[in-house]
Amino acid sequence: MLYLIGLGLGDAKDITVRGLEVVRRCSRVYLEAYTSVLAVGKEALEEFYGRKLILADREEVEQEADDILKDADVSEVAFLVVGDPFGATTHSDLILRAAKLGIPYRVIHNASIMNAVGCCGLQLYNFGETVSIVFWTDSWRPESFFDKMEKNRQNGMHTLCLLDIKVKEQSLENLIKGRKIYEPPRYMSVNQAAQQLLEIVQNRRGRGEEPAITEETICVGLARVGAEDQKIAAGTLRQMCTVDLGGPLQSLVVTGGHLHPLEMEMLSLFPIPEKD
Amino acid sequence: MLYLIGLGLGDAKDITVRGLEVVRRCSRVYLEAYTSVLAVGKEALEEFYGRKLILADREEVEQEADDILKDADVSEVAFLVVGDPFGATTHSDLILRAAKLGIPYRVIHNASIMNAVGCCGLQLYNFGETVSIVFWTDSWRPESFFDKMEKNRQNGMHTLCLLDIKVKEQSLENLIKGRKIYEPPRYMSVNQAAQQLLEIVQNRRGRGEEPAITEETICVGLARVGAEDQKIAAGTLRQMCTVDLGGPLQSLVVTGGHLHPLEMEMLSLFPIPEKD
Repeated sequence: MLYLIGLGLGDAKDITVRGLEVVRRCSRVYLEAYTSVLAVGKEALEEFYGRKLILADREEVEQEADDILKDADVSEVAFLVVGDPFGATTHSDLILRAAKLGIPYRVIHNASIMNAVGCCGLQLYNFGETVSIVFWTDSWRPESFFDKMEKNRQNGMHTLCLLDIKVKEQSLENLIKGRKIYEPPRYMSVNQAAQQLLEIVQNRRGRGEEPAITEETICVGLARVGAEDQKIAAGTLRQMCTVDLGGPLQSLVVTGGHLHPLEMEMLSLFPIPEKD
Repeated sequence: MLYLIGLGLGDAKDITVRGLEVVRRCSRVYLEAYTSVLAVGKEALEEFYGRKLILADREEVEQEADDILKDADVSEVAFLVVGDPFGATTHSDLILRAAKLGIPYRVIHNASIMNAVGCCGLQLYNFGETVSIVFWTDSWRPESFFDKMEKNRQNGMHTLCLLDIKVKEQSLENLIKGRKIYEPPRYMSVNQAAQQLLEIVQNRRGRGEEPAITEETICVGLARVGAEDQKIAAGTLRQMCTVDLGGPLQSLVVTGGHLHPLEMEMLSLFPIPEKD
Protein backbone atom coordinates (compact mmCIF):
# COMPACT_ATOMS: atom_id res chain seq x y z
CA MET A 1 0.00 0.00 0.00
CA LEU A 2 1.25 3.47 -0.93
CA TYR A 3 0.03 6.23 1.37
CA LEU A 4 0.13 9.84 0.20
CA ILE A 5 -0.10 11.87 3.38
CA GLY A 6 -0.62 15.62 3.66
CA LEU A 7 1.33 17.32 6.45
CA GLY A 8 -0.67 20.54 6.53
CA LEU A 9 0.95 23.94 6.68
CA GLY A 10 2.42 24.71 10.08
CA ASP A 11 4.73 22.31 11.87
CA ALA A 12 5.01 18.65 12.87
CA LYS A 13 1.74 18.67 14.84
CA ASP A 14 -0.34 19.61 11.81
CA ILE A 15 -0.39 16.03 10.55
CA THR A 16 -3.70 14.28 11.23
CA VAL A 17 -4.03 11.64 13.91
CA ARG A 18 -4.68 9.07 11.17
CA GLY A 19 -1.66 10.26 9.21
CA LEU A 20 0.60 9.96 12.24
CA GLU A 21 -0.58 6.41 12.93
CA VAL A 22 0.24 5.41 9.35
CA VAL A 23 3.65 7.12 9.38
CA ARG A 24 4.59 5.25 12.53
CA ARG A 25 3.81 1.85 11.07
CA CYS A 26 5.06 2.15 7.47
CA SER A 27 8.24 0.34 6.50
CA ARG A 28 9.64 3.35 4.62
CA VAL A 29 8.67 7.03 4.89
CA TYR A 30 9.59 9.54 2.18
CA LEU A 31 9.35 13.32 2.55
CA GLU A 32 8.73 15.27 -0.62
CA ALA A 33 11.10 18.18 -0.40
CA TYR A 34 10.85 20.32 -3.45
CA THR A 35 7.56 22.16 -3.73
CA SER A 36 7.04 23.58 -0.28
CA VAL A 37 8.40 23.82 3.23
CA LEU A 38 7.05 23.69 6.73
CA ALA A 39 8.07 26.08 9.48
CA VAL A 40 10.24 23.28 10.83
CA GLY A 41 12.90 21.08 9.25
CA LYS A 42 13.23 17.37 8.58
CA GLU A 43 14.86 16.70 11.96
CA ALA A 44 11.93 18.15 13.92
CA LEU A 45 9.53 16.01 11.89
CA GLU A 46 11.64 12.91 12.49
CA GLU A 47 11.71 13.54 16.20
CA PHE A 48 7.96 14.08 16.46
CA TYR A 49 7.04 11.15 14.21
CA GLY A 50 9.66 8.90 15.76
CA ARG A 51 10.74 7.83 12.26
CA LYS A 52 13.64 8.39 9.92
CA LEU A 53 12.54 10.24 6.78
CA ILE A 54 14.04 9.72 3.33
CA LEU A 55 14.19 13.01 1.44
CA ALA A 56 12.68 12.78 -2.03
CA ASP A 57 13.76 15.69 -4.15
CA ARG A 58 12.64 16.47 -7.65
CA GLU A 59 15.05 14.01 -9.23
CA GLU A 60 13.95 11.36 -6.78
CA VAL A 61 10.24 11.74 -7.44
CA GLU A 62 10.42 11.94 -11.18
CA GLN A 63 13.29 9.59 -11.88
CA GLU A 64 13.36 7.25 -8.96
CA ALA A 65 9.68 6.64 -8.31
CA ASP A 66 10.43 2.96 -8.72
CA ASP A 67 12.54 3.05 -5.55
CA ILE A 68 9.65 4.58 -3.66
CA LEU A 69 7.25 1.96 -4.95
CA LYS A 70 9.59 -0.98 -4.37
CA ASP A 71 7.82 -3.74 -2.39
CA ALA A 72 4.84 -1.43 -1.79
CA ASP A 73 2.63 -4.25 -3.00
CA VAL A 74 3.60 -6.32 0.04
CA SER A 75 4.48 -3.61 2.58
CA GLU A 76 3.34 -0.11 3.53
CA VAL A 77 5.19 2.93 2.21
CA ALA A 78 4.36 6.56 3.08
CA PHE A 79 5.02 9.58 0.91
CA LEU A 80 4.68 12.81 2.89
CA VAL A 81 3.75 16.06 1.21
CA VAL A 82 3.60 19.54 2.75
CA GLY A 83 0.01 20.76 2.54
CA ASP A 84 -2.25 18.28 0.74
CA PRO A 85 -1.08 15.63 -1.77
CA PHE A 86 -3.39 17.25 -4.32
CA GLY A 87 -2.79 20.87 -3.43
CA ALA A 88 -0.70 23.10 -5.62
CA THR A 89 1.29 20.17 -6.99
CA THR A 90 -0.41 16.94 -7.78
CA HIS A 91 1.29 13.64 -7.43
CA SER A 92 -0.60 12.03 -10.26
CA ASP A 93 2.60 10.64 -11.75
CA LEU A 94 3.38 8.61 -8.64
CA ILE A 95 -0.21 7.37 -8.38
CA LEU A 96 -0.34 6.38 -12.03
CA ARG A 97 2.90 4.44 -11.69
CA ALA A 98 1.54 2.68 -8.61
CA ALA A 99 -1.67 1.85 -10.48
CA LYS A 100 0.30 0.35 -13.39
CA LEU A 101 2.23 -1.83 -10.95
CA GLY A 102 -1.00 -2.95 -9.29
CA ILE A 103 -0.07 -1.24 -6.02
CA PRO A 104 -3.08 0.09 -4.13
CA TYR A 105 -2.87 3.63 -2.75
CA ARG A 106 -4.66 5.73 -0.19
CA VAL A 107 -4.67 9.50 0.30
CA ILE A 108 -4.73 11.12 3.73
CA HIS A 109 -5.76 14.69 3.09
CA ASN A 110 -4.82 17.84 4.94
CA ALA A 111 -5.07 21.59 4.56
CA SER A 112 -3.24 23.23 1.66
CA ILE A 113 -2.82 26.87 0.74
CA MET A 114 -5.53 26.20 -1.86
CA ASN A 115 -8.18 26.10 0.88
CA ALA A 116 -6.44 27.65 3.90
CA VAL A 117 -6.23 30.95 1.98
CA GLY A 118 -9.85 31.36 3.07
CA CYS A 119 -8.51 32.53 6.45
CA CYS A 120 -8.12 36.04 5.03
CA GLY A 121 -11.89 36.28 4.82
CA LEU A 122 -12.29 36.10 1.05
CA GLN A 123 -14.76 33.37 0.15
CA LEU A 124 -13.23 30.30 -1.50
CA TYR A 125 -16.30 30.09 -3.74
CA ASN A 126 -15.22 33.29 -5.41
CA PHE A 127 -11.73 32.27 -6.45
CA GLY A 128 -11.02 31.75 -10.13
CA GLU A 129 -8.06 30.02 -11.71
CA THR A 130 -4.96 29.82 -9.49
CA VAL A 131 -1.75 31.20 -10.98
CA SER A 132 1.95 30.80 -10.27
CA ILE A 133 4.16 33.89 -10.37
CA VAL A 134 7.68 32.91 -11.37
CA PHE A 135 10.97 34.69 -10.72
CA TRP A 136 11.90 36.74 -13.75
CA THR A 137 15.40 36.54 -15.15
CA ASP A 138 17.16 39.01 -17.45
CA SER A 139 16.02 37.07 -20.49
CA TRP A 140 12.79 35.40 -19.36
CA ARG A 141 9.99 37.69 -18.22
CA PRO A 142 6.70 35.89 -18.85
CA GLU A 143 3.44 37.78 -18.33
CA SER A 144 0.96 34.97 -19.00
CA PHE A 145 -0.12 34.74 -15.36
CA PHE A 146 -1.20 38.39 -15.54
CA ASP A 147 -3.63 37.62 -18.36
CA LYS A 148 -5.27 34.93 -16.22
CA MET A 149 -5.47 37.28 -13.25
CA GLU A 150 -7.11 39.95 -15.39
CA LYS A 151 -9.62 37.43 -16.70
CA ASN A 152 -10.48 36.36 -13.16
CA ARG A 153 -10.92 39.95 -12.08
CA GLN A 154 -13.08 40.78 -15.08
CA ASN A 155 -15.26 37.84 -14.02
CA GLY A 156 -15.41 39.17 -10.45
CA MET A 157 -13.20 36.36 -9.13
CA HIS A 158 -10.25 36.52 -6.76
CA THR A 159 -6.89 35.10 -7.83
CA LEU A 160 -4.63 33.12 -5.56
CA CYS A 161 -1.06 33.68 -6.71
CA LEU A 162 1.40 30.99 -5.65
CA LEU A 163 4.86 32.48 -5.43
CA ASP A 164 7.93 30.85 -6.93
CA ILE A 165 10.21 28.58 -4.94
CA LYS A 166 13.68 27.75 -6.21
CA VAL A 167 15.22 24.81 -4.43
CA LYS A 168 18.28 22.87 -5.58
CA GLU A 169 19.03 25.27 -8.39
CA GLN A 170 22.39 24.97 -10.10
CA SER A 171 24.28 27.90 -11.54
CA LEU A 172 24.76 27.67 -15.30
CA GLU A 173 28.46 27.05 -14.72
CA ASN A 174 27.88 24.19 -12.29
CA LEU A 175 25.22 22.75 -14.55
CA ILE A 176 27.54 22.74 -17.57
CA LYS A 177 30.38 21.25 -15.59
CA GLY A 178 28.05 18.63 -14.14
CA ARG A 179 28.86 19.67 -10.58
CA LYS A 180 26.08 18.91 -8.11
CA ILE A 181 26.56 22.20 -6.28
CA TYR A 182 23.32 23.97 -5.50
CA GLU A 183 22.44 27.62 -4.92
CA PRO A 184 20.75 28.57 -1.62
CA PRO A 185 16.95 28.18 -1.81
CA ARG A 186 14.96 31.25 -2.86
CA TYR A 187 11.36 31.99 -1.98
CA MET A 188 9.50 34.81 -3.72
CA SER A 189 8.06 37.37 -1.31
CA VAL A 190 4.81 39.28 -1.69
CA ASN A 191 6.95 42.40 -2.24
CA GLN A 192 8.77 40.84 -5.16
CA ALA A 193 5.56 39.48 -6.69
CA ALA A 194 3.83 42.86 -6.39
CA GLN A 195 6.80 44.64 -7.97
CA GLN A 196 6.74 42.27 -10.94
CA LEU A 197 3.02 42.80 -11.32
CA LEU A 198 3.41 46.59 -11.29
CA GLU A 199 6.08 46.30 -13.96
CA ILE A 200 3.61 44.42 -16.11
CA VAL A 201 1.01 47.14 -15.48
CA GLN A 202 3.54 49.70 -16.73
CA ASN A 203 4.43 47.56 -19.77
CA ARG A 204 0.79 47.34 -20.74
CA ARG A 205 0.26 51.08 -20.36
CA GLY A 206 3.33 51.57 -22.52
CA ARG A 207 1.51 49.62 -25.21
CA GLY A 208 -1.56 51.83 -24.82
CA GLU A 209 -3.62 49.29 -22.87
CA GLU A 210 -5.37 49.99 -19.57
CA PRO A 211 -5.01 46.81 -17.50
CA ALA A 212 -7.83 45.45 -15.32
CA ILE A 213 -5.39 45.27 -12.41
CA THR A 214 -3.66 48.49 -11.32
CA GLU A 215 -1.68 50.03 -8.45
CA GLU A 216 -4.96 50.59 -6.58
CA THR A 217 -6.38 47.05 -6.85
CA ILE A 218 -7.09 45.58 -3.41
CA CYS A 219 -4.81 42.65 -2.62
CA VAL A 220 -4.02 40.45 0.35
CA GLY A 221 -0.55 39.34 1.33
CA LEU A 222 -0.28 36.15 3.39
CA ALA A 223 2.79 34.69 5.06
CA ARG A 224 3.25 31.35 6.81
CA VAL A 225 -0.47 30.51 6.74
CA GLY A 226 -1.30 27.98 9.44
CA ALA A 227 1.86 28.62 11.45
CA GLU A 228 1.97 30.32 14.87
CA ASP A 229 3.47 33.49 13.39
CA GLN A 230 1.15 33.72 10.38
CA LYS A 231 0.76 37.25 9.00
CA ILE A 232 -1.94 38.68 6.76
CA ALA A 233 -2.18 42.22 5.41
CA ALA A 234 -4.78 43.70 3.07
CA GLY A 235 -4.11 46.80 0.99
CA THR A 236 -3.48 48.03 -2.52
CA LEU A 237 -1.13 46.33 -4.94
CA ARG A 238 1.18 49.35 -4.51
CA GLN A 239 1.23 48.77 -0.73
CA MET A 240 2.07 45.10 -1.30
CA CYS A 241 5.42 46.24 -2.76
CA THR A 242 6.65 47.34 0.66
CA VAL A 243 4.52 45.57 3.30
CA ASP A 244 6.68 43.63 5.78
CA LEU A 245 5.39 40.08 6.22
CA GLY A 246 8.60 38.45 7.44
CA GLY A 247 9.97 35.19 6.06
CA PRO A 248 8.64 32.56 3.63
CA LEU A 249 6.34 31.00 2.50
CA GLN A 250 4.23 33.83 1.18
CA SER A 251 1.21 34.04 -1.11
CA LEU A 252 -0.62 36.92 -2.73
CA VAL A 253 -4.31 37.27 -3.48
CA VAL A 254 -5.56 39.78 -6.03
CA THR A 255 -9.23 40.41 -5.33
CA GLY A 256 -12.04 40.32 -7.85
CA GLY A 257 -13.84 43.52 -8.69
CA HIS A 258 -16.68 43.23 -6.21
CA LEU A 259 -16.17 42.35 -2.58
CA HIS A 260 -19.03 41.07 -0.45
CA PRO A 261 -19.60 43.31 2.61
CA LEU A 262 -18.58 40.41 4.86
CA GLU A 263 -15.37 40.01 2.86
CA MET A 264 -14.68 43.74 3.25
CA GLU A 265 -15.28 43.54 6.98
CA MET A 266 -12.97 40.53 7.32
CA LEU A 267 -10.20 42.29 5.35
CA SER A 268 -10.46 45.22 7.75
CA LEU A 269 -9.12 42.87 10.45
CA PHE A 270 -5.81 42.78 8.56
CA PRO A 271 -4.56 46.35 8.15
CA ILE A 272 -1.11 47.07 6.72
CA PRO A 273 1.26 47.33 9.70
CA GLU A 274 2.46 50.88 10.41
CA LYS A 275 6.07 51.61 9.51
CA ASP A 276 8.43 52.24 12.42
CA MET B 1 -9.09 32.41 22.96
CA LEU B 2 -11.53 31.13 20.36
CA TYR B 3 -10.23 28.19 18.32
CA LEU B 4 -11.85 27.34 15.01
CA ILE B 5 -10.78 23.79 14.31
CA GLY B 6 -11.28 21.85 11.10
CA LEU B 7 -12.12 18.16 11.52
CA GLY B 8 -11.30 17.07 8.00
CA LEU B 9 -13.54 14.81 5.98
CA GLY B 10 -13.46 11.22 7.19
CA ASP B 11 -13.94 10.30 10.82
CA ALA B 12 -12.69 11.20 14.30
CA LYS B 13 -9.03 10.49 13.46
CA ASP B 14 -8.91 13.09 10.70
CA ILE B 15 -8.45 15.91 13.21
CA THR B 16 -4.85 17.14 13.37
CA VAL B 17 -2.62 16.34 16.32
CA ARG B 18 -2.60 20.04 17.19
CA GLY B 19 -6.37 20.24 16.92
CA LEU B 20 -6.83 17.25 19.23
CA GLU B 21 -4.52 18.78 21.85
CA VAL B 22 -6.56 21.98 21.82
CA VAL B 23 -9.91 20.16 21.97
CA ARG B 24 -8.76 18.22 25.01
CA ARG B 25 -7.80 21.34 26.97
CA CYS B 26 -10.59 23.79 26.06
CA SER B 27 -13.20 24.62 28.66
CA ARG B 28 -16.09 24.28 26.17
CA VAL B 29 -16.17 22.51 22.80
CA TYR B 30 -18.88 23.23 20.22
CA LEU B 31 -19.56 21.12 17.14
CA GLU B 32 -21.00 22.94 14.17
CA ALA B 33 -23.74 20.66 12.95
CA TYR B 34 -25.51 22.17 10.02
CA THR B 35 -23.37 22.41 6.92
CA SER B 36 -21.76 19.02 6.67
CA VAL B 37 -21.38 15.63 8.31
CA LEU B 38 -18.61 13.20 8.99
CA ALA B 39 -18.89 9.46 8.41
CA VAL B 40 -19.34 9.12 12.18
CA GLY B 41 -21.70 10.78 14.66
CA LYS B 42 -21.25 13.08 17.64
CA GLU B 43 -20.90 10.18 20.07
CA ALA B 44 -17.94 8.66 18.21
CA LEU B 45 -16.23 12.04 18.21
CA GLU B 46 -16.88 12.51 21.92
CA GLU B 47 -15.42 9.12 22.69
CA PHE B 48 -12.28 9.68 20.64
CA TYR B 49 -11.71 13.25 21.84
CA GLY B 50 -12.59 12.36 25.43
CA ARG B 51 -14.79 15.47 25.60
CA LYS B 52 -18.48 16.32 25.65
CA LEU B 53 -19.48 18.28 22.57
CA ILE B 54 -22.15 20.96 22.50
CA LEU B 55 -24.08 20.85 19.21
CA ALA B 56 -24.30 24.23 17.53
CA ASP B 57 -26.99 24.21 14.90
CA ARG B 58 -27.87 27.01 12.55
CA GLU B 59 -29.90 28.88 15.14
CA GLU B 60 -27.08 28.50 17.63
CA VAL B 61 -24.38 29.86 15.39
CA GLU B 62 -26.29 32.77 14.00
CA GLN B 63 -28.36 33.75 17.00
CA GLU B 64 -26.46 32.49 19.98
CA ALA B 65 -22.89 33.29 19.05
CA ASP B 66 -22.68 35.24 22.28
CA ASP B 67 -23.06 31.99 24.25
CA ILE B 68 -20.18 30.47 22.33
CA LEU B 69 -18.00 33.51 22.96
CA LYS B 70 -18.91 33.85 26.65
CA ASP B 71 -15.74 34.07 28.76
CA ALA B 72 -13.60 33.25 25.72
CA ASP B 73 -11.48 36.27 26.64
CA VAL B 74 -10.35 34.51 29.82
CA SER B 75 -10.71 30.85 28.84
CA GLU B 76 -10.29 28.63 25.79
CA VAL B 77 -13.30 27.72 23.67
CA ALA B 78 -13.21 25.44 20.61
CA PHE B 79 -15.60 25.53 17.67
CA LEU B 80 -15.31 22.39 15.55
CA VAL B 81 -16.19 22.43 11.88
CA VAL B 82 -16.34 19.48 9.48
CA GLY B 83 -13.74 20.05 6.75
CA ASP B 84 -11.95 23.40 7.17
CA PRO B 85 -13.35 26.43 9.02
CA PHE B 86 -13.00 28.39 5.77
CA GLY B 87 -14.12 25.69 3.38
CA ALA B 88 -17.50 25.82 1.73
CA THR B 89 -18.99 27.83 4.58
CA THR B 90 -16.99 30.56 6.18
CA HIS B 91 -17.36 31.42 9.80
CA SER B 92 -16.60 35.06 9.29
CA ASP B 93 -19.59 36.11 11.38
CA LEU B 94 -18.27 34.33 14.48
CA ILE B 95 -14.77 35.73 13.95
CA LEU B 96 -16.03 39.26 13.45
CA ARG B 97 -18.09 39.04 16.64
CA ALA B 98 -15.05 37.75 18.52
CA ALA B 99 -12.94 40.59 17.11
CA LYS B 100 -15.50 43.19 18.24
CA LEU B 101 -15.43 41.73 21.75
CA GLY B 102 -11.63 41.82 21.77
CA ILE B 103 -11.42 38.01 21.90
CA PRO B 104 -8.37 36.63 20.08
CA TYR B 105 -8.92 33.69 17.74
CA ARG B 106 -6.83 31.05 16.06
CA VAL B 107 -7.66 28.77 13.14
CA ILE B 108 -6.50 25.17 12.94
CA HIS B 109 -6.91 24.22 9.32
CA ASN B 110 -7.75 20.88 7.78
CA ALA B 111 -8.75 19.38 4.45
CA SER B 112 -12.07 20.46 2.95
CA ILE B 113 -13.86 19.29 -0.16
CA MET B 114 -12.57 22.52 -1.74
CA ASN B 115 -9.05 21.06 -1.92
CA ALA B 116 -9.58 17.32 -1.38
CA VAL B 117 -11.55 17.20 -4.64
CA GLY B 118 -8.11 17.11 -6.26
CA CYS B 119 -8.03 13.38 -5.46
CA CYS B 120 -9.99 12.69 -8.66
CA GLY B 121 -6.95 13.81 -10.63
CA LEU B 122 -8.27 17.11 -11.96
CA GLN B 123 -5.83 19.88 -11.15
CA LEU B 124 -7.00 22.33 -8.50
CA TYR B 125 -5.37 25.13 -10.49
CA ASN B 126 -7.94 24.63 -13.19
CA PHE B 127 -11.08 25.01 -11.13
CA GLY B 128 -13.21 28.10 -11.63
CA GLU B 129 -15.95 29.43 -9.39
CA THR B 130 -17.50 26.84 -7.08
CA VAL B 131 -21.29 26.51 -7.26
CA SER B 132 -23.98 25.09 -5.00
CA ILE B 133 -26.75 23.03 -6.57
CA VAL B 134 -29.92 23.36 -4.50
CA PHE B 135 -32.90 21.02 -4.23
CA TRP B 136 -35.63 22.26 -6.53
CA THR B 137 -39.17 22.54 -5.26
CA ASP B 138 -42.40 22.74 -7.27
CA SER B 139 -42.26 26.51 -7.22
CA TRP B 140 -38.56 27.28 -6.97
CA ARG B 141 -36.30 26.00 -9.72
CA PRO B 142 -33.31 28.31 -9.96
CA GLU B 143 -30.84 27.86 -12.81
CA SER B 144 -28.28 30.49 -11.88
CA PHE B 145 -25.65 27.89 -10.93
CA PHE B 146 -25.81 26.54 -14.48
CA ASP B 147 -24.83 29.92 -15.91
CA LYS B 148 -21.73 29.94 -13.72
CA MET B 149 -20.87 26.39 -14.74
CA GLU B 150 -21.19 27.28 -18.41
CA LYS B 151 -18.97 30.30 -17.92
CA ASN B 152 -16.32 28.15 -16.23
CA ARG B 153 -16.47 25.61 -19.02
CA GLN B 154 -16.23 28.28 -21.70
CA ASN B 155 -13.09 29.46 -19.91
CA GLY B 156 -11.71 25.90 -19.84
CA MET B 157 -12.19 25.60 -16.08
CA HIS B 158 -13.65 22.75 -14.06
CA THR B 159 -16.60 23.40 -11.72
CA LEU B 160 -16.91 21.89 -8.29
CA CYS B 161 -20.63 21.56 -7.52
CA LEU B 162 -21.46 21.34 -3.83
CA LEU B 163 -24.71 19.47 -3.41
CA ASP B 164 -27.53 20.65 -1.17
CA ILE B 165 -27.91 19.51 2.42
CA LYS B 166 -31.20 20.00 4.24
CA VAL B 167 -30.85 19.55 7.98
CA LYS B 168 -33.40 20.60 10.61
CA GLU B 169 -35.99 21.52 8.01
CA GLN B 170 -39.51 22.13 9.23
CA SER B 171 -42.58 21.33 7.17
CA LEU B 172 -44.63 24.41 6.31
CA GLU B 173 -47.30 23.20 8.73
CA ASN B 174 -44.90 22.76 11.62
CA LEU B 175 -43.27 26.08 10.83
CA ILE B 176 -46.60 27.93 10.89
CA LYS B 177 -47.69 26.24 14.10
CA GLY B 178 -44.30 26.97 15.67
CA ARG B 179 -43.66 23.29 16.37
CA LYS B 180 -40.00 22.41 16.55
CA ILE B 181 -40.50 19.15 14.69
CA TYR B 182 -37.92 18.56 12.00
CA GLU B 183 -37.95 16.54 8.80
CA PRO B 184 -35.30 13.84 8.35
CA PRO B 185 -32.07 15.26 6.88
CA ARG B 186 -31.74 15.15 3.09
CA TYR B 187 -28.51 15.06 1.14
CA MET B 188 -28.51 15.61 -2.61
CA SER B 189 -26.91 12.76 -4.56
CA VAL B 190 -24.86 13.02 -7.73
CA ASN B 191 -27.79 11.34 -9.51
CA GLN B 192 -30.24 14.02 -8.41
CA ALA B 193 -27.85 16.83 -9.27
CA ALA B 194 -27.18 15.39 -12.72
CA GLN B 195 -30.91 14.99 -13.38
CA GLN B 196 -31.56 18.63 -12.48
CA LEU B 197 -28.71 19.71 -14.74
CA LEU B 198 -30.08 17.70 -17.66
CA GLU B 199 -33.48 19.29 -17.12
CA ILE B 200 -31.83 22.68 -17.44
CA VAL B 201 -30.10 21.52 -20.64
CA GLN B 202 -33.54 20.59 -22.02
CA ASN B 203 -35.05 23.90 -20.90
CA ARG B 204 -32.34 25.82 -22.71
CA ARG B 205 -32.77 23.80 -25.90
CA GLY B 206 -36.50 24.48 -25.65
CA ARG B 207 -35.63 28.16 -25.80
CA GLY B 208 -33.49 27.58 -28.87
CA GLU B 209 -30.14 27.81 -27.07
CA GLU B 210 -27.35 25.24 -27.29
CA PRO B 211 -25.84 25.05 -23.81
CA ALA B 212 -22.08 24.71 -23.23
CA ILE B 213 -22.78 21.71 -20.98
CA THR B 214 -24.64 18.74 -22.45
CA GLU B 215 -25.45 15.06 -21.85
CA GLU B 216 -21.98 14.16 -23.15
CA THR B 217 -19.92 16.52 -20.98
CA ILE B 218 -17.33 14.63 -18.92
CA CYS B 219 -18.10 14.79 -15.20
CA VAL B 220 -16.79 13.22 -12.01
CA GLY B 221 -18.99 12.00 -9.19
CA LEU B 222 -17.39 11.82 -5.74
CA ALA B 223 -18.81 10.31 -2.58
CA ARG B 224 -17.47 10.38 0.98
CA VAL B 225 -14.14 11.91 -0.04
CA GLY B 226 -11.49 11.17 2.58
CA ALA B 227 -13.44 8.32 4.19
CA GLU B 228 -12.47 4.64 4.01
CA ASP B 229 -15.28 3.87 1.58
CA GLN B 230 -14.75 6.86 -0.71
CA LYS B 231 -16.02 6.36 -4.26
CA ILE B 232 -15.15 8.24 -7.42
CA ALA B 233 -16.56 7.67 -10.91
CA ALA B 234 -15.84 9.58 -14.09
CA GLY B 235 -18.22 9.57 -17.05
CA THR B 236 -20.67 11.67 -19.00
CA LEU B 237 -23.29 13.85 -17.35
CA ARG B 238 -25.88 11.36 -18.63
CA GLN B 239 -24.05 8.53 -16.84
CA MET B 240 -24.00 10.58 -13.63
CA CYS B 241 -27.81 10.28 -13.54
CA THR B 242 -27.60 6.59 -12.72
CA VAL B 243 -24.12 5.89 -11.33
CA ASP B 244 -24.27 4.22 -7.91
CA LEU B 245 -22.00 5.97 -5.43
CA GLY B 246 -23.71 4.88 -2.21
CA GLY B 247 -24.57 7.24 0.63
CA PRO B 248 -23.81 10.91 1.35
CA LEU B 249 -21.94 13.24 1.18
CA GLN B 250 -21.55 13.52 -2.54
CA SER B 251 -20.11 16.15 -4.87
CA LEU B 252 -20.09 16.57 -8.62
CA VAL B 253 -17.41 18.02 -10.85
CA VAL B 254 -18.20 19.22 -14.35
CA THR B 255 -14.96 19.36 -16.30
CA GLY B 256 -13.70 22.27 -18.38
CA GLY B 257 -13.47 21.85 -22.11
CA HIS B 258 -9.85 20.75 -22.32
CA LEU B 259 -8.38 18.07 -20.11
CA HIS B 260 -4.64 17.75 -19.63
CA PRO B 261 -3.37 14.28 -20.69
CA LEU B 262 -2.40 13.59 -17.06
CA GLU B 263 -5.92 14.53 -15.96
CA MET B 264 -7.37 12.17 -18.57
CA GLU B 265 -5.12 9.37 -17.40
CA MET B 266 -6.09 9.94 -13.76
CA LEU B 267 -9.81 9.92 -14.62
CA SER B 268 -9.32 6.56 -16.34
CA LEU B 269 -8.57 5.13 -12.87
CA PHE B 270 -12.20 5.80 -11.95
CA PRO B 271 -14.45 4.02 -14.45
CA ILE B 272 -18.21 3.88 -13.97
CA PRO B 273 -18.92 0.65 -12.09
CA GLU B 274 -20.58 -2.06 -14.21
CA LYS B 275 -24.26 -2.69 -13.47
CA ASP B 276 -25.08 -6.08 -11.95
